[in-house]
Amino acid sequence: MEKPSLPKGTRDFGPQTMARRNFILQSIRTVFQKFGFQPLETPAMESLETLTGKYGEEGDQLLFKILDNGDFLKNVDAAKLEIRNSKLVTSEISGKGLRYDLTVPFARYVVMNRHEITLPFKRYQIQPVWRADRPQKGRYREFYQCDADVVGTDSLICEAEIILMIKEVMALLNISDYSIKINHRGVLNGIAEVIQATGKETDLFVAIDKLEKIGEENVRKELAEKGFSTQQQDILFDLLNTTGLAEQKLATLSAAFSSSPSGKKGIDELKDVFNLLELYKSTTDNVEFDIALARGLSYYTGCIFEVKINNVSIGSISGGGRYDNLTQAFGAKEKLSGVGFSFGIDRIFDAMEELNLFPKETTASSKVLICHFDEATLQYGLAILTSLRSAGIASEIYPDISKLKKQLDYANKKNIPYTIVLGEEELKTDMCTIKNMLTGEQQKQPTEQIVHYFS
Amino acid sequence: MEKPSLPKGTRDFGPQTMARRNFILQSIRTVFQKFGFQPLETPAMESLETLTGKYGEEGDQLLFKILDNGDFLKNVDAAKLEIRNSKLVTSEISGKGLRYDLTVPFARYVVMNRHEITLPFKRYQIQPVWRADRPQKGRYREFYQCDADVVGTDSLICEAEIILMIKEVMALLNISDYSIKINHRGVLNGIAEVIQATGKETDLFVAIDKLEKIGEENVRKELAEKGFSTQQQDILFDLLNTTGLAEQKLATLSAAFSSSPSGKKGIDELKDVFNLLELYKSTTDNVEFDIALARGLSYYTGCIFEVKINNVSIGSISGGGRYDNLTQAFGAKEKLSGVGFSFGIDRIFDAMEELNLFPKETTASSKVLICHFDEATLQYGLAILTSLRSAGIASEIYPDISKLKKQLDYANKKNIPYTIVLGEEELKTDMCTIKNMLTGEQQKQPTEQIVHYFS
Repeated sequence: MEKPSLPKGTRDFGPQTMARRNFILQSIRTVFQKFGFQPLETPAMESLETLTGKYGEEGDQLLFKILDNGDFLKNVDAAKLEIRNSKLVTSEISGKGLRYDLTVPFARYVVMNRHEITLPFKRYQIQPVWRADRPQKGRYREFYQCDADVVGTDSLICEAEIILMIKEVMALLNISDYSIKINHRGVLNGIAEVIQATGKETDLFVAIDKLEKIGEENVRKELAEKGFSTQQQDILFDLLNTTGLAEQKLATLSAAFSSSPSGKKGIDELKDVFNLLELYKSTTDNVEFDIALARGLSYYTGCIFEVKINNVSIGSISGGGRYDNLTQAFGAKEKLSGVGFSFGIDRIFDAMEELNLFPKETTASSKVLICHFDEATLQYGLAILTSLRSAGIASEIYPDISKLKKQLDYANKKNIPYTIVLGEEELKTDMCTIKNMLTGEQQKQPTEQIVHYFS
Repeated sequence: MEKPSLPKGTRDFGPQTMARRNFILQSIRTVFQKFGFQPLETPAMESLETLTGKYGEEGDQLLFKILDNGDFLKNVDAAKLEIRNSKLVTSEISGKGLRYDLTVPFARYVVMNRHEITLPFKRYQIQPVWRADRPQKGRYREFYQCDADVVGTDSLICEAEIILMIKEVMALLNISDYSIKINHRGVLNGIAEVIQATGKETDLFVAIDKLEKIGEENVRKELAEKGFSTQQQDILFDLLNTTGLAEQKLATLSAAFSSSPSGKKGIDELKDVFNLLELYKSTTDNVEFDIALARGLSYYTGCIFEVKINNVSIGSISGGGRYDNLTQAFGAKEKLSGVGFSFGIDRIFDAMEELNLFPKETTASSKVLICHFDEATLQYGLAILTSLRSAGIASEIYPDISKLKKQLDYANKKNIPYTIVLGEEELKTDMCTIKNMLTGEQQKQPTEQIVHYFS
């Protein structure tokens, strides 16, 4: 048999990676819970009826589909088989797919459980999703999403709390140099109105969204190709190039939007969010009003967010925004407005590695390994092990009688920071020799003091 | 559009269920880590080459297979399509499947990373698995497994520690009335030798394994049908009906196995495990030597375990054993012996619900909801919210200005135990009215004392 391998675009997470990923996930989970969000988990498989048509045509093609069990070819239409039309045959041999994101399953859950749910409903969800994308650096076919959403309220308190949560997560992760960019769909619509480009919003926003990446000149080129006049471009860049603190920018745009109700609404809501931050005794540090932030096109209807870590070669690590109607795609009559955001674990992980931000103690290792020389010292070690564990200290004993070197190697390779070495002498005197594996330093402690020493 | 639904045999886990499941999982994780086990996660999808042939023919049929992306029909052999042979076509249109258990992915990981792994390797893995079984009460198509294994050592310390870990998990879950059954493959082989049934082990062990369920008479009937003589049955039940404490049973069987080396080895190892428990300062409470425990047939080669909670209508909640060669199926030359066990989360969950064992505070709810009457009291509440959260107290504010009744209903439905009600009076006097939602009791506290009150 050939050596086994992993499917393209998937990964194993060994102990060290797991410890670091769990550090990130646990930080996020802690903050979500402190802000009153409740956990939800949905199945990996969803009906294709639930998934199809929710992510555009490209998304449909990236869904992983599950082959029906049993004799799936039995009832397939002969004509479809004959012409080998994979697309038409798919729907006859596959009824389920793997979830593509956490938003559609969340909406499906809300529709199915509408009567048991108390609004506003605050849920978080941390689970893997699957996409048949072409794998490349930083893009995988299985990856985790961490979403938090509030549905059933229009209150801007939710928007303010998203900023607060991002700040708390960043603090727990020791990330200090980052920007939370915020904009509002109304502001973007206002810009379209002001430059008289109503009806051409998509072209406009797609171009604007690239500003940071490709610069003004290239955005102008793209706009010109799409039929925007030089005058329109000039007014646009007058607005986009508004400088100053958030407060000043908001004032400038407020004036520019005097005849645009949606622009005005956007500015007013952003002002409210900034005011709320103050009432929460927080600050606008790390928060930036970014007029060019577009983030997708049709889904969001209110505030939009994006978070970037500065000075790393990694895209945004978090984003989200307010939407009008979570359950529309499922034909629900009731309009459920909400706001949500999501953390990108893989990117946070890469950024923290690049910036060397993981605490040294983020390992999945025991704190202590007990080493011994023979049956008698091994047996002596078992009682010590029990007392360490009773005190909650993760510890282990080398299970075989082996050379001390092999036991110390094991500790080193597993990043176990301390060993207790038990020889004949230690046994006789009821002492433990403790070795710090990092410094090599050794000292003796009475066995009865050992728990105290490590606590 | 029709109301959406879940695929057969799958479940959503809402907030309350999640909180309880997490309580179980966190208890297990804590114990695994305290005993030096390190986390591993593998992808949901594995190559079908990795999965197929590892679970018997029935298992192969229960694998969920992923349809290849793109134009999967393009290169399928015309003859296979023509005769509509689903089995033959499967291998041409599907190269991946969902993992069926955690053992095969673990073995695959060990083979692929053999050079980076330090032996003995202690890993735990808590992830969902998928099986296209017919769904029924307590049996799902997606469910979690929680495995811990040590590979690369024959030391019986591992077996003893499995018992210790099970005891610690049970203690954390408040489960006191349970039995850890232990037996040894050698004992079973010894029985086969003693009753001269070598070569018919499978029939024998399958029958023995049913003893608890169907009773001696029916086991005898089954054995008779399989050609076991009455004399063989009599000797067998003499052995199976050995009574007394583990020590006495071991002594009795030791004598019976005087001419069976494998039986003798089994007894000796079990004795060693019991002795080790004593050296660990633990006891044999809840541990039972069960001669009739067979647990699967060919996989295990040494000690075998099974855990049952007494007085609930639920099967075993944990099981495992020692195996000879983890990576054999992948053609690895090196023989890696190991021992592992697994907890069944769904069954533990059901048992704990039946026995009402979940701590009352196992909810995913905030501790405090801040209620208000108007813009001013809401704003006053925001600063209080910040101070509560700064102290790590999960809390929220009702985000809309609504009737107090609606806000209190929200707290009740979400099992939030305390509300802070802020009215004009409270605002003026810098006081908070605290309401215990369970007892209805109310009291006032100065706002500056509020964090202290809830800490």
